[in-house]
Amino acid sequence: MTLRISSEEITCPQDFLAAAVSAGVKKEDGRLDVGLLYSTRPSLAAARFTTNVVKAAPLLVCQEHLEESRGDIRAVIVNSGNANACTGELGMKAARRMAGLAAKVLGISDQQVLVASTGVIGVPLPVERIEQQASALKERLSPAAVGDVARAIMTTDTVRKVCSAEVPIAGSIVRISGMTKGAGMIHPRMATMLAFVLTDVLITRALLEAALSEACEKSYNRISVDGDTSTNDTLAIIANGGSGARLIEDRGDDYAVFAEALTGVCQSLAQQIVRDGEGATKFIEIVVRGAKTESDATQIARSIANSPLFKTAMAGEDANWGRILCAAGYSGVAFDPNRVDIHIGDLPVCQSGMGLTFDEKRAKEILKERDIRISLDLKTGSHGSTMWTCDLTKEYIHINADYRT
Amino acid sequence: MTLRISSEEITCPQDFLAAAVSAGVKKEDGRLDVGLLYSTRPSLAAARFTTNVVKAAPLLVCQEHLEESRGDIRAVIVNSGNANACTGELGMKAARRMAGLAAKVLGISDQQVLVASTGVIGVPLPVERIEQQASALKERLSPAAVGDVARAIMTTDTVRKVCSAEVPIAGSIVRISGMTKGAGMIHPRMATMLAFVLTDVLITRALLEAALSEACEKSYNRISVDGDTSTNDTLAIIANGGSGARLIEDRGDDYAVFAEALTGVCQSLAQQIVRDGEGATKFIEIVVRGAKTESDATQIARSIANSPLFKTAMAGEDANWGRILCAAGYSGVAFDPNRVDIHIGDLPVCQSGMGLTFDEKRAKEILKERDIRISLDLKTGSHGSTMWTCDLTKEYIHINADYRT
Repeated sequence: MTLRISSEEITCPQDFLAAAVSAGVKKEDGRLDVGLLYSTRPSLAAARFTTNVVKAAPLLVCQEHLEESRGDIRAVIVNSGNANACTGELGMKAARRMAGLAAKVLGISDQQVLVASTGVIGVPLPVERIEQQASALKERLSPAAVGDVARAIMTTDTVRKVCSAEVPIAGSIVRISGMTKGAGMIHPRMATMLAFVLTDVLITRALLEAALSEACEKSYNRISVDGDTSTNDTLAIIANGGSGARLIEDRGDDYAVFAEALTGVCQSLAQQIVRDGEGATKFIEIVVRGAKTESDATQIARSIANSPLFKTAMAGEDANWGRILCAAGYSGVAFDPNRVDIHIGDLPVCQSGMGLTFDEKRAKEILKERDIRISLDLKTGSHGSTMWTCDLTKEYIHINADYRT
Repeated sequence: MTLRISSEEITCPQDFLAAAVSAGVKKEDGRLDVGLLYSTRPSLAAARFTTNVVKAAPLLVCQEHLEESRGDIRAVIVNSGNANACTGELGMKAARRMAGLAAKVLGISDQQVLVASTGVIGVPLPVERIEQQASALKERLSPAAVGDVARAIMTTDTVRKVCSAEVPIAGSIVRISGMTKGAGMIHPRMATMLAFVLTDVLITRALLEAALSEACEKSYNRISVDGDTSTNDTLAIIANGGSGARLIEDRGDDYAVFAEALTGVCQSLAQQIVRDGEGATKFIEIVVRGAKTESDATQIARSIANSPLFKTAMAGEDANWGRILCAAGYSGVAFDPNRVDIHIGDLPVCQSGMGLTFDEKRAKEILKERDIRISLDLKTGSHGSTMWTCDLTKEYIHINADYRT
């Protein structure tokens, strides 16, 4: 039996429960905006947060709790509609109240709860509305509600983003189920992005951290919508051992199998964010090969993925490969432009830094597709990397020009 | 008598001539697309080029000529409609042919000519069309044609961008006249930006270089339209001593007066580019104060100036100051977000990192203006910096989605 992965639906791993309610934090009446994820048995968590020096209150509370509890985390409470960012001491109090409320509902300690928020920045969080939902949250706890939580974290997302995997570890089935949100302010090194992964694997804290780092580097750190790094990015995983599979305590085969599956889940979630990028009409994979190091390749791919001129050319279905080479050129990586080959899909458009005469009709056909692959070969080494991004359209401007009011 | 500066018209400094013709390099028939600038007496040049590792052929030829002639440059030939970038060995030949043609027309050596091109990337430059205009260029040489050259370098620019200054140096009048083009692919550290400055000052090469560096740092390196750094950016100055003012040979008062005037001209030119930013409806000045160093302040201002989310909020006239603080936060500069004050115009919107309740109507009024000032005080030091940028609108996407075809 091998890895089974599905981005259609989300299943709940063993010994987890979830609940979602509408607390009126979102402007629109009746939309789910508060979610709770809970492990009914002792569990461990690992998390990654935004690199922005402006960190929203819930992230600071999460960091405290992870340290104080040494990773002994049992639950996540999350709201959408308000990011509780740039809200000062009041915001810290509000985030602590959210954690406290979840702890009370579940009968665990405050330090065992992670808190996350997403939405508008700089507006006090109406935490009392969330507190009023305490008993509703408790009543609704069920494995099936995990899908509702995936819906409750959505903001400008147009689709729910989930992914579930099942992977055999020493004869037992381990489940990994993730949900994510995010459509704008998406950038390598974390974004207005929330992601929660539940798994019933049994694993040491150090190895859970390692597997999450690896997965994050190859998924969330390889996507870009608009190059803005948010104040609220959070990727958290909770592992509770509910599967009954034996403990993963070294970097042997079991670890490799689990880490690969986790990376697969995170890549699927991250790619779903790009596909739903604000105003996006195209999913673009940028593959850089022939670099001296993997980090050079990533840096070049990232520079292209962030170029507004490249992204608007993609929106216009224009094979403007000069902008691709230009963005590679200002990436900060030294390379010889006269060696670079570029393909748009399978069509060679530039060889050794010089434009080729190519079939414009064929180029249009390739660029009319929803999924586009751009590849560059630097021909100076043997390392490569891949980034995923989307096009930049008028709709992006429309969505963001009056988001706050 | 003090510095007089005008961005309305361009006057020709002493002993310079100019010519512009239509050679059919631009797609549109009859538009001026080739320009020639010439000092009729011995002159010196200094120049700055793009930091992009992908440098267009004309820049490589300029670098050769500046080195070979040790700055003894007499002329600039420039075309729009084609950037002669990513055109390989053929492109180098074409750039050399352009220089040769100017040298022949003017009776100077090839090494005394700078070459510049702007327009589409990756398409061979039809240099023969430019060569066919040799006699026309020669016939049209006149001081008045300097304004036509400013027009000949335009691409997506909607207005001609010029600035002239007159400054007294030891009883003589020194003229500094600049022209520039650029509207997209504009980024700190040079852009698809051409700028040519003519001056009849008499100055040593080292001090001309120094004054240009200083002016560039405080003008072109402080603007951003879309964060793309082009393959063709060039800022060149030619000084010929035609004013009769005494030689500037040390960093005394004469140098200070000249350098200040040159900085003023370059700031005016750079700001004209931002005002004409592709699709721009707003001119935004970002002032950062209270930083530990000037470079910290610049880095934060630049991060805000490049944030698509901030720029779309400005387009939507939305006082979304959270995005300002957020962009400061991911600039890479360490600072305490809980000390930051933010003003939009004269309206305080954030104090010590926390949102203030402010008059939304007043905010709308400020943001309805064409010129907007955003200021941040980090309250951690005594250094500051300013960047100029524009908003990001649907029109930017429209202009760039199908530029090439």
